[in-house]
Amino acid sequence: MANIIKKRKLGRGVAVVGFGMSKFGVLPGQSNRDMFVDAFKELLKSVDKGIDPKDIEANYVGCCGAWNWETQAGVGKWCTDWVGLVPKPSTTIDNACASASVAIRNGILGIASGMYDIVLAGGTEKMTTLPTEATTLVLATGADATWESYAGYTFPGLYATMATAHMHEYGTTPEDLMYVALKNHANGALNPKAQMNYSIAQWMEMRKQKAAKDGKPVPTWKDEMEFLHDNSANPMVAYPLRLFDCCPITDGAAVVLLVAEEIAKNFTDHPLYIRGMSQTSGRALHNRDTLTCIPGTQIAAQQAYDMAGVTAQDIKIAEVHDCFTIAEVMAIADLGFFKPGKEAATAAREGKTALNGIKPINTSGGLKCKGHPVGASGAGMVGEIWHQMRKEAGPRQVKMDVDLAMTHNVGAHGTDVVIHIFERRG
Amino acid sequence: MANIIKKRKLGRGVAVVGFGMSKFGVLPGQSNRDMFVDAFKELLKSVDKGIDPKDIEANYVGCCGAWNWETQAGVGKWCTDWVGLVPKPSTTIDNACASASVAIRNGILGIASGMYDIVLAGGTEKMTTLPTEATTLVLATGADATWESYAGYTFPGLYATMATAHMHEYGTTPEDLMYVALKNHANGALNPKAQMNYSIAQWMEMRKQKAAKDGKPVPTWKDEMEFLHDNSANPMVAYPLRLFDCCPITDGAAVVLLVAEEIAKNFTDHPLYIRGMSQTSGRALHNRDTLTCIPGTQIAAQQAYDMAGVTAQDIKIAEVHDCFTIAEVMAIADLGFFKPGKEAATAAREGKTALNGIKPINTSGGLKCKGHPVGASGAGMVGEIWHQMRKEAGPRQVKMDVDLAMTHNVGAHGTDVVIHIFERRG
Repeated sequence: MANIIKKRKLGRGVAVVGFGMSKFGVLPGQSNRDMFVDAFKELLKSVDKGIDPKDIEANYVGCCGAWNWETQAGVGKWCTDWVGLVPKPSTTIDNACASASVAIRNGILGIASGMYDIVLAGGTEKMTTLPTEATTLVLATGADATWESYAGYTFPGLYATMATAHMHEYGTTPEDLMYVALKNHANGALNPKAQMNYSIAQWMEMRKQKAAKDGKPVPTWKDEMEFLHDNSANPMVAYPLRLFDCCPITDGAAVVLLVAEEIAKNFTDHPLYIRGMSQTSGRALHNRDTLTCIPGTQIAAQQAYDMAGVTAQDIKIAEVHDCFTIAEVMAIADLGFFKPGKEAATAAREGKTALNGIKPINTSGGLKCKGHPVGASGAGMVGEIWHQMRKEAGPRQVKMDVDLAMTHNVGAHGTDVVIHIFERRG
Repeated sequence: MANIIKKRKLGRGVAVVGFGMSKFGVLPGQSNRDMFVDAFKELLKSVDKGIDPKDIEANYVGCCGAWNWETQAGVGKWCTDWVGLVPKPSTTIDNACASASVAIRNGILGIASGMYDIVLAGGTEKMTTLPTEATTLVLATGADATWESYAGYTFPGLYATMATAHMHEYGTTPEDLMYVALKNHANGALNPKAQMNYSIAQWMEMRKQKAAKDGKPVPTWKDEMEFLHDNSANPMVAYPLRLFDCCPITDGAAVVLLVAEEIAKNFTDHPLYIRGMSQTSGRALHNRDTLTCIPGTQIAAQQAYDMAGVTAQDIKIAEVHDCFTIAEVMAIADLGFFKPGKEAATAAREGKTALNGIKPINTSGGLKCKGHPVGASGAGMVGEIWHQMRKEAGPRQVKMDVDLAMTHNVGAHGTDVVIHIFERRG
């Protein structure tokens, strides 16, 4: 069979010209629709030269668990209704924690196809309606129901499995992982929309003040490392992952406005262009040759670099998937930013991935601190890139000039990987 | 804002070159993955000149309720794994009962965009793991959780509301609806893959034989109309909809193989080309101006006809969404095949929509008889068009030459509508 060799080239360029997100956090009384409306309103304001909502032709919405957290399936169309876009086509996508990135990808493909010129894409997730234990089980439906979740695996356990394998193979230590949390909290402290909008030192101080106020013994941690090793302050979730190695449970929505490249300047003088993109699927943990990387990330990275005509070295900053600290360690190796093993594991400890390190990673605070509303997170990542590339990131603006940046969004434990490479021209 | 006027023209043509489906029905012990594998195997055999699965570049899977019926979210990627397509990108779509058609639409857009040349798209649904009452509630999550399902509405009730409005406005009778069921059962009797593979007369005969065998009083129905009015044989579900006005609950999977038009002849000398396509969203029932039509179908029909450059009269046959008999009556009016009201309501009674009527509708037996595995149904519809246009429909092959045909797939009570118009050339 002589088929066409894959070129992975879009028939038409696509650009991001707007971004909006709701607050990320525990938002009692706010439904998916409410949060989506908040994100949409902010998006409308973000478009420098304005956008008439009537010109939006389609809405792609990532959402993983509204069927359970809100007893609402196919939530995208109801969000579409609440922002006044009916009868425009609305597609709801469930690719676990990569849902919003898959939504954005399909919005891009819809424009590249010629069907649309202007598309809204993003996601939403309302996660705090159930007790945490129940929410952990809802999330576990994203793993393999046949072999993983039925056997009792939940996501902390799945990532802990990868973490212990990493420790075994490379000598990675729990402290290495703690430095990832420290770094992402340092960034999150500078992000007013982050759910955990504080550094670990600030959190320690808040804990001390609360203890004093409550008339309880005031903790005497001498530094963050002592705090992070304190079993009562930072309890073990699944060895070696402690509470501060895990992202929080989050309500939130985020959306981007995608348009055909040839009309991008109608909306802003500073669009972000899609330069590369890729998506892969993956297998259950027991069906992989290795537990110390996400194979789908390695494949997706190569495809995205090939499409963009760039290398890992050309990417200035990246928002990578850090649902657990070990996930960031694996991601920055799989993406080619650092060598697998010790170099990747110690990158945070050595300041290489800090806000003004050689390769700033998760300047937003990452899922770890910004929060991880699973169906929305991929769009939230694009938002950070949007702000950084446009030099609108305020106190967390990186010093380097960011002409190329990446989002890397993982579904489940690597069964979905979506990468986008964004370019700023001029 | 001077944006580009929408042309709705694909940058590249797309064709269907293969189709496969599992048995539709109650399939104990068969998971979504098992059924998807069955459908995929049949698809591989259906490609006249063969396909190497390694050439498939992406998999779009519709699925609405696996999170509940199988405790498995994002089921598409697990199907992708089980047919050996990892690490190809896999997207899971939840647009209620239109999920598979939305999957196919996005597969088409993916090819038209230039990103892919060869895409697998379809859907799967495992619905019989829970008691029927629970399944009805799972399905109700597809309605508006804020205003409909929370108030006790389920889908039979929502469609019954539209049916009574139709009776009120147009004088439509319950008998008119019964003739839709009679017609679709006549077609389903000729479809070996149909869940209800029997005419209503055959069903009556089976009931009589069983009664005789069980030593019970043998029913004395003199004809189908008497049977259909028998409260014990055909009980009321939600007035005026009785059991035989409702589609069954079904396990099943179906997939199509989509390729770029320029390589279609590498796979078969008889591809079906995508000539028109459209998708709309809709609002909750109480937010509509009318209850006697699906506004989204009317809009989608016009868009698809415009894109295809054809009229309703040019469409030779159509598979339309008949989850309930009233749905078919509304569809054939909304699509412009018959005048709204009496003409549409009596089309089945007068034989106009019969297998060899002037406009054959649901030659497969429709969702009503073929079965309605909600996430897969849209792909099943394309399968019937595939067989009919290629003159491979066996005893239910229509006599007319089908050069243009349509699938019309509705999500929920009209909150999603997807139309595809297929063309056979030569």
